[in-house]
Amino acid sequence: MTVRFGLLGAGRIGKVHAKAVTSNSKAKLVAVADAMAQAANDLAAQYGSEVRSIEAIEAAGDIDAVIICTPTDTHADLIERFARAGKAIFCEKPVDLDVERVKNCLKVVDQTDATLMVGFNRRFDPHFQAVKAAIAAGQIGEVEMVTIVSRDPGAPPAEYVQRSGGIFRDMTIHDLDMARFLLGEEIESVSAQASVLVDKAIGEAGDYDSASLMLFTASGKHATISNSRRATYGYDQRIEVHGSKGAVAAENQRPVSIEIANADGYTRPPLHDFFMTRYTEAYAREISAFIDYVQAKAPASPSGADGLVALALADAALKSVKEGRAVKVSEITG
Amino acid sequence: MTVRFGLLGAGRIGKVHAKAVTSNSKAKLVAVADAMAQAANDLAAQYGSEVRSIEAIEAAGDIDAVIICTPTDTHADLIERFARAGKAIFCEKPVDLDVERVKNCLKVVDQTDATLMVGFNRRFDPHFQAVKAAIAAGQIGEVEMVTIVSRDPGAPPAEYVQRSGGIFRDMTIHDLDMARFLLGEEIESVSAQASVLVDKAIGEAGDYDSASLMLFTASGKHATISNSRRATYGYDQRIEVHGSKGAVAAENQRPVSIEIANADGYTRPPLHDFFMTRYTEAYAREISAFIDYVQAKAPASPSGADGLVALALADAALKSVKEGRAVKVSEITG
Amino acid sequence: MTVRFGLLGAGRIGKVHAKAVTSNSKAKLVAVADAMAQAANDLAAQYGSEVRSIEAIEAAGDIDAVIICTPTDTHADLIERFARAGKAIFCEKPVDLDVERVKNCLKVVDQTDATLMVGFNRRFDPHFQAVKAAIAAGQIGEVEMVTIVSRDPGAPPAEYVQRSGGIFRDMTIHDLDMARFLLGEEIESVSAQASVLVDKAIGEAGDYDSASLMLFTASGKHATISNSRRATYGYDQRIEVHGSKGAVAAENQRPVSIEIANADGYTRPPLHDFFMTRYTEAYAREISAFIDYVQAKAPASPSGADGLVALALADAALKSVKEGRAVKVSEITG
Amino acid sequence: MTVRFGLLGAGRIGKVHAKAVTSNSKAKLVAVADAMAQAANDLAAQYGSEVRSIEAIEAAGDIDAVIICTPTDTHADLIERFARAGKAIFCEKPVDLDVERVKNCLKVVDQTDATLMVGFNRRFDPHFQAVKAAIAAGQIGEVEMVTIVSRDPGAPPAEYVQRSGGIFRDMTIHDLDMARFLLGEEIESVSAQASVLVDKAIGEAGDYDSASLMLFTASGKHATISNSRRATYGYDQRIEVHGSKGAVAAENQRPVSIEIANADGYTRPPLHDFFMTRYTEAYAREISAFIDYVQAKAPASPSGADGLVALALADAALKSVKEGRAVKVSEITG
Repeated sequence: MTVRFGLLGAGRIGKVHAKAVTSNSKAKLVAVADAMAQAANDLAAQYGSEVRSIEAIEAAGDIDAVIICTPTDTHADLIERFARAGKAIFCEKPVDLDVERVKNCLKVVDQTDATLMVGFNRRFDPHFQAVKAAIAAGQIGEVEMVTIVSRDPGAPPAEYVQRSGGIFRDMTIHDLDMARFLLGEEIESVSAQASVLVDKAIGEAGDYDSASLMLFTASGKHATISNSRRATYGYDQRIEVHGSKGAVAAENQRPVSIEIANADGYTRPPLHDFFMTRYTEAYAREISAFIDYVQAKAPASPSGADGLVALALADAALKSVKEGRAVKVSEITG
Repeated sequence: MTVRFGLLGAGRIGKVHAKAVTSNSKAKLVAVADAMAQAANDLAAQYGSEVRSIEAIEAAGDIDAVIICTPTDTHADLIERFARAGKAIFCEKPVDLDVERVKNCLKVVDQTDATLMVGFNRRFDPHFQAVKAAIAAGQIGEVEMVTIVSRDPGAPPAEYVQRSGGIFRDMTIHDLDMARFLLGEEIESVSAQASVLVDKAIGEAGDYDSASLMLFTASGKHATISNSRRATYGYDQRIEVHGSKGAVAAENQRPVSIEIANADGYTRPPLHDFFMTRYTEAYAREISAFIDYVQAKAPASPSGADGLVALALADAALKSVKEGRAVKVSEITG
Repeated sequence: MTVRFGLLGAGRIGKVHAKAVTSNSKAKLVAVADAMAQAANDLAAQYGSEVRSIEAIEAAGDIDAVIICTPTDTHADLIERFARAGKAIFCEKPVDLDVERVKNCLKVVDQTDATLMVGFNRRFDPHFQAVKAAIAAGQIGEVEMVTIVSRDPGAPPAEYVQRSGGIFRDMTIHDLDMARFLLGEEIESVSAQASVLVDKAIGEAGDYDSASLMLFTASGKHATISNSRRATYGYDQRIEVHGSKGAVAAENQRPVSIEIANADGYTRPPLHDFFMTRYTEAYAREISAFIDYVQAKAPASPSGADGLVALALADAALKSVKEGRAVKVSEITG
Repeated sequence: MTVRFGLLGAGRIGKVHAKAVTSNSKAKLVAVADAMAQAANDLAAQYGSEVRSIEAIEAAGDIDAVIICTPTDTHADLIERFARAGKAIFCEKPVDLDVERVKNCLKVVDQTDATLMVGFNRRFDPHFQAVKAAIAAGQIGEVEMVTIVSRDPGAPPAEYVQRSGGIFRDMTIHDLDMARFLLGEEIESVSAQASVLVDKAIGEAGDYDSASLMLFTASGKHATISNSRRATYGYDQRIEVHGSKGAVAAENQRPVSIEIANADGYTRPPLHDFFMTRYTEAYAREISAFIDYVQAKAPASPSGADGLVALALADAALKSVKEGRAVKVSEITG
């Protein structure tokens, strides 16, 4: 049974998902909606899809699932509408910037028994999946310490920062989800410190651009996260897991793997400079997994609850920075 | 102007090219031909193309270019037919296993002023292209020595070996073309030694499975090639160029780049185990380049002449093995 | 002018320093003292030195400098005695496990104008020195984030742990000194979390075997430290510094740098399994630097004050673990 | 029983061996001889040895073994004299530049039953030894192809070249010995090509500065050697062995293993720029092995016969360049 898709939002990430859907022999892109008519038309034309309104997609009998790539402040509402309309839902992270709003949204998902998958694409990166598989296969024994280094190629404009919910909810949230994914145990407390080292405008917008976090589980497992909004050498994305029998690490990815040697030494080209080229394969695998969940009528993973926990961890980090202490996640989730 | 394609041969490599054509916004796969009706039907159905006979494609007004993926012994005839039919031609290597046959075929291409590109896909590998670009940018100065290590994951069956023209014409030919591509100067002589170390059946079929070659240019530049039909750790494909100001190397590609550390050491997974996954990107870029040549009505590269020289180098290598001496390429090409 | 040495303590680390002194053309090992007569005799015989009592070395006219490698609880007393005796002093870390005791000891050093160098050997590792030199040369711009991963090959016996002052004063103290060395700015606050994951006996002895730390400076620079008492793959010692213009990292050192490839992948041997083989060169360079300081009558670095600050940072870390908050270093140093 | 040494030649390499002898607890450097009195005096003073004439060392009752580091054209004569004098002999390579002279010299060694070890230091490099050990342990199965890349940091002056016997006898000879060491089977034929790409003066002196070699054994095993007299990035010394079950490689050594990342990419410092720093450990282990052979009264390895074969291979390479054909080693050795 082919999964028939409606795509909400024909922007940058919408295009990525449209390609993933149309490349998948088990799926069909039936309709595209976007507030910008031109964007919707162009994307629909490229893949032979129709342009429809959100309302029409909601009511459509020929659509099984939607992909929500609209602005963040519309996510929770759209999830509720499409859950009630009986569609399977893939929603870009975050569900919302407010924990209470997310909780209420997930209640609707729960009541309607809807399939909801949240877009933590990095879980589907083949290298990170191989790390996870090595852990699952017992190759490093019991997980003890997760180390994540995550740095953007360049800082976003201050106006983006203001809408983003801040570095923890916008950027670190991916690393917090990855830490949970790899620790295999819930995080109990978060300690964080943050500063403005990259761009003063970010500080003036009330945010940070450089952050360190320590996460701690009930059994005493550790995770550390190091974030910066700027890395001159490209998109720095490394994870490492130390365990009782060994360790496993995923190194950075490079678009070109040559090395030039001369009197100045040995030089390799910089890393990917953009999250979309770095995580091309992850985006494709993510949608493929969603399609499989929908076909199997199975609960999707990462779920809405995963999205909620990651957001609560981000809120705990911010609280820790403000109060200079380890913050329990339960203080946030209540 | 969209380039309209006919695909001759719907086998393994035909499928790769069909995907490349249909993924390219400047091209359209109009028709597929294959002696096996089922193969042609399946591939045509997947991409919404028609099934046609070779004759029909030859006569078609709605086809600008053909991709020849039929058995090797049909290549030269098909090139001549489609050159006369005024189609642009992409042909998998080799044009033929016989130097004289290739020469005659290229005369027809020349007389008909046809566009002919020969499928040395490795020239389009992004890593090897980066090596070439580093040389072109003067980063290593004058090229002096090219080192190529090229090993297959596993030996082919002896019956394949018999039809293949032998290791030099079948396998080494890619490395010979790469050596020419990187040396930037024609090869004058070839010395080779070869033995059967992997599979006795290959020896019984009159071929070798392990070979070393030294190539020499008029100005004294060197290239060495090391070939084996079997590498337990995967598809081993390395090139390195040493120059007057430095060196540049392209390392092996891996499907997954993690590393696991334990008491036995640090272990990374094996290399790709199949040429199609190793050179996925190269195949796509190759067809993309061909489409650009056709649109620009420009001479294609690698050309039929490149195919001829690579074959002559392979023949020189075989002669060198038999006679235990350096063989001039001019002895082969006359 | 040759620097004439007395060595106090002929144990494991004493032997390392004896070798460094006798290999240095600017130094002479005049006398060795040890409570164990056999140990003193053996070491003295090997290098043609005399065996003397500590009192005799204190009173000797033919000794310019001493190296203190006796048990930790004797360090402060010996430093004071030899400072008063007018000898230059190299003392293994720590000066003492108690901050107040260290302060009082350093007062004596100050009053007597003695040369005192504290044994943070890692500052002299050639790879870490190259990292420091790259920073000093401006190659990464302004330092922003220091990341230290430091893991022992195996956990010490619980009885050692009890005398050691705990993981922070015994093990992390090296990383705390390294963080200061690389940050180039004093650390203002310390956050730490710690647990027992490796060996329950360590927990029963009141200590931890797994720890994470975040350090923060007044200007908002970050450092993180990840410690474990056990790494199956060897002595894991990595540092990385992220700055405004780039980053610099020192990778792990291996006794043998080969790689074996087979169907299971590519395997490199484990790391060094012992701090003495990992830091062989650092120990030699450390004593060489001390000799240079003594000859030049220059203040030694790392100094007694460096030893004090590192201890205070360790105490702050322990306090942070106990109280679940960021602890100011000024809370410890008063 | 301590091995008492006389050192013949107090130049650059003599100093290296003097250090190795004096650092070894099983050996003693009794006397040093050198035509340059100052050189002999300085080295003897540094280690508390005597200065003696060659004749005095020959006649001395307190000397068990000699190390010959005098100019090449004296080697064979000195070996014969000290063999007759009953001393164990370590001689720097080569024994002589003439195969017949070497044969005659080895006859004397044989008749006097002397211990003779020839200085192919690279066999004692810890990384190359680990490669050899991996082969011996069966980790790569049956050896099939050895690949050696060996490039000097910079070309020697033309006057050196004239005395050296040419690139094959001076430089390649080390790689030829290494190929034999790793192949585990005698080489039957040599094919070589050579040119002048680095320095015209070398060509004017009748020599080459760039060479490629292919070696072949009776059972069909291959080795290739790539030599250049100049590598801008340092002393390039790599070996790789491909076998039926896998492969093993020793990578280049670097004095400092850091990596700096910035907008231009990731850069590691150049390699060692001098054979003495690259092979420091190899020189020490080489003399240590010789001492062990002398103490055990066991035949030394590499032996005089190993020196002879390596020289014959070098001569075969030169003949192959001149005649453009594979040359049998038996054509040289008769």
